[in-house]
Amino acid sequence: MARIAVVAGDGIGTEVTAEARKVIEAVLPGTEFDDYDLGARFYNRTGEVLPQVIEDELAAHDAILLGAIGDPSVPPGVLERGLLLKLRFDFDQYVNLRPSKLWPGTTSPLAGLKPGEIDMVVVREGTEGLYVGAGGVLHKDTPAEIATEESLNTRHGVERVVRDAFARAQRRERRHLTLVHKTNVLTKAGSLWARTFAAVAAEFPEVTTEYQHVDAACMFMVSNPQRYDVIVTDNLFGDIITDIAAAVTGGIGMAASGSVNPERKYPSTFEPVHGSAPDIAGQGIADPAAAILSASLLLEHLGHQDEARRVSEAVAAEVASRAAGASLRTAEVGDRVAAAL
Amino acid sequence: MARIAVVAGDGIGTEVTAEARKVIEAVLPGTEFDDYDLGARFYNRTGEVLPQVIEDELAAHDAILLGAIGDPSVPPGVLERGLLLKLRFDFDQYVNLRPSKLWPGTTSPLAGLKPGEIDMVVVREGTEGLYVGAGGVLHKDTPAEIATEESLNTRHGVERVVRDAFARAQRRERRHLTLVHKTNVLTKAGSLWARTFAAVAAEFPEVTTEYQHVDAACMFMVSNPQRYDVIVTDNLFGDIITDIAAAVTGGIGMAASGSVNPERKYPSTFEPVHGSAPDIAGQGIADPAAAILSASLLLEHLGHQDEARRVSEAVAAEVASRAAGASLRTAEVGDRVAAAL
Ligand SMILES: CC(C)[C@H](C(=O)O)[C@@H](O)C(=O)O
Ligand SMILES: CC(C)[C@H](C(=O)O)[C@@H](O)C(=O)O
Repeated sequence: MARIAVVAGDGIGTEVTAEARKVIEAVLPGTEFDDYDLGARFYNRTGEVLPQVIEDELAAHDAILLGAIGDPSVPPGVLERGLLLKLRFDFDQYVNLRPSKLWPGTTSPLAGLKPGEIDMVVVREGTEGLYVGAGGVLHKDTPAEIATEESLNTRHGVERVVRDAFARAQRRERRHLTLVHKTNVLTKAGSLWARTFAAVAAEFPEVTTEYQHVDAACMFMVSNPQRYDVIVTDNLFGDIITDIAAAVTGGIGMAASGSVNPERKYPSTFEPVHGSAPDIAGQGIADPAAAILSASLLLEHLGHQDEARRVSEAVAAEVASRAAGASLRTAEVGDRVAAAL
Repeated sequence: MARIAVVAGDGIGTEVTAEARKVIEAVLPGTEFDDYDLGARFYNRTGEVLPQVIEDELAAHDAILLGAIGDPSVPPGVLERGLLLKLRFDFDQYVNLRPSKLWPGTTSPLAGLKPGEIDMVVVREGTEGLYVGAGGVLHKDTPAEIATEESLNTRHGVERVVRDAFARAQRRERRHLTLVHKTNVLTKAGSLWARTFAAVAAEFPEVTTEYQHVDAACMFMVSNPQRYDVIVTDNLFGDIITDIAAAVTGGIGMAASGSVNPERKYPSTFEPVHGSAPDIAGQGIADPAAAILSASLLLEHLGHQDEARRVSEAVAAEVASRAAGASLRTAEVGDRVAAAL
């Protein structure tokens, strides 16, 4: 039986995670869940973000189901660096997986696009680049202040995520992989990515490939998102591109993500892309679709392909059946999806 | 009389620049133009990108009118780093100015947006950040390879561009300025930007301010671009955001830019955001609108506010008058705009 650590977190995180859990229980009865109280409330109470003993306990689970972390009462960066990014780094979650689809029942802000026309996955590197936290500040708060940020990239780190992206592209219908970087400006890291990409491509002759600069890719993401199948890119570019991909497929309401350690040496984290939304928290009106789709990614990662597919189909059916403008109750959405399974 | 260096460059660069020059001649008769043959052809012929003597000559001009640089025959990065970025750095062009408007006669890919509804300027820092070229590669082409890129940010560099952006916001109707960064991950550079922004804000009490993470800003750029008035951001984020801004206002056909040294100690460069488009070069069918709008920014920078306004209004009128689907001749567009002045 799968053992899942639940970090429901703050704001609507707790509400949507309850529904994701409900759905996993419906499709995989007997799954064990252990709740962990982490996030803004925990930090404000204890002054700690992620005690080592808790992290050790998390490490003993098969996966982590996360809601959303963050509250205006906590300074920016504290929970992000101390919890979300710490888990990505410590648990070697080097594949940050973000599918974007234009689902039936959802509307793209782009004119004339029909459901089904956008269907892409961004494979974002999760453990390197500008996210490593290297750099420093000198002469703070003086006119002489300087601040640096260092992007660290290894052949090891780039190769493994690029290979993962090729393998995913290989399993999809269109078998197309786009590398996104900024090789004309970031010539050092860009060259490492481009050379590694070319080397790994030789192992996947059936996958067609393409390179785009990040600025051009962001433009195409708006003018022609249909062109993308799988995208592989670095940590920061992936952060940006996946939010645009979410926007053109109708917003973050359906945006799921996984921070994955493919070898399953460490637990992977699955969470909706949206935040804790303090403005609507506590009212039971948050849409749990993205959280439930994240649960579907979790099931897939744990080898339950069939259950994963059934869950995402049930979410799609639920969303497609929504009457335009009808108000939504978080728990009812979860109930309907669970009942359909 | 203004002395302008013309770097028409490659591909459609030469074609659209001829029209921009025609328009400047119409509105400021007597302007002196000196042509410089730089870009891919020059590089392929001489093996040099920007000889020091040429750069010294460029430095003696009031401004540089640039077309587009680049050709598949030149490895990526060579002309970008050796010419475009070199001018930005050597001529201290720290304000990279990119207005985006939804003009009458153009169509946004975003559903339901009407001309006039988007009107923003991105003030992108032009001389710091990840563009400085710092970093290196170790153990190249071995499994132990690492590549680094370093983002360098100074209080000096951030403060001057932030102050420029506040001053621009102050002169506009809505007087709203958005800082875009990624303070929750890039905590060192982000903190420098945020603290500097807050300090300069005190000098501009009439400007309302807002902060957004770059990923959220890119999402809003698609879901609600109307919300933006002036945006100030770092070099790389600005590169990305301005391409999205161009995309949501109908593509790069109307996207003008200036790399500006506000003190006019060095010449500023004005160029369309689009590239050299080798695929359509030589056919006389490239739209010179963005190049002519860049000429308008040039005129404004040199203190010819009235002429600048007349040029951009003439371009707007020309674009608005285009029959849907009609084919376009580069020279005719320039002729019509020049004739209208
Ligand atoms: C919260 C933040 C640290 C995080 C990131 O930048 O990766 C978020 O934007 C995301 O995309 O998961
Ligand atoms: C060509 C390239 C170096 C340049 C940049 O990244 O600044 C371009 O994309 C731009 O936006 O002017």
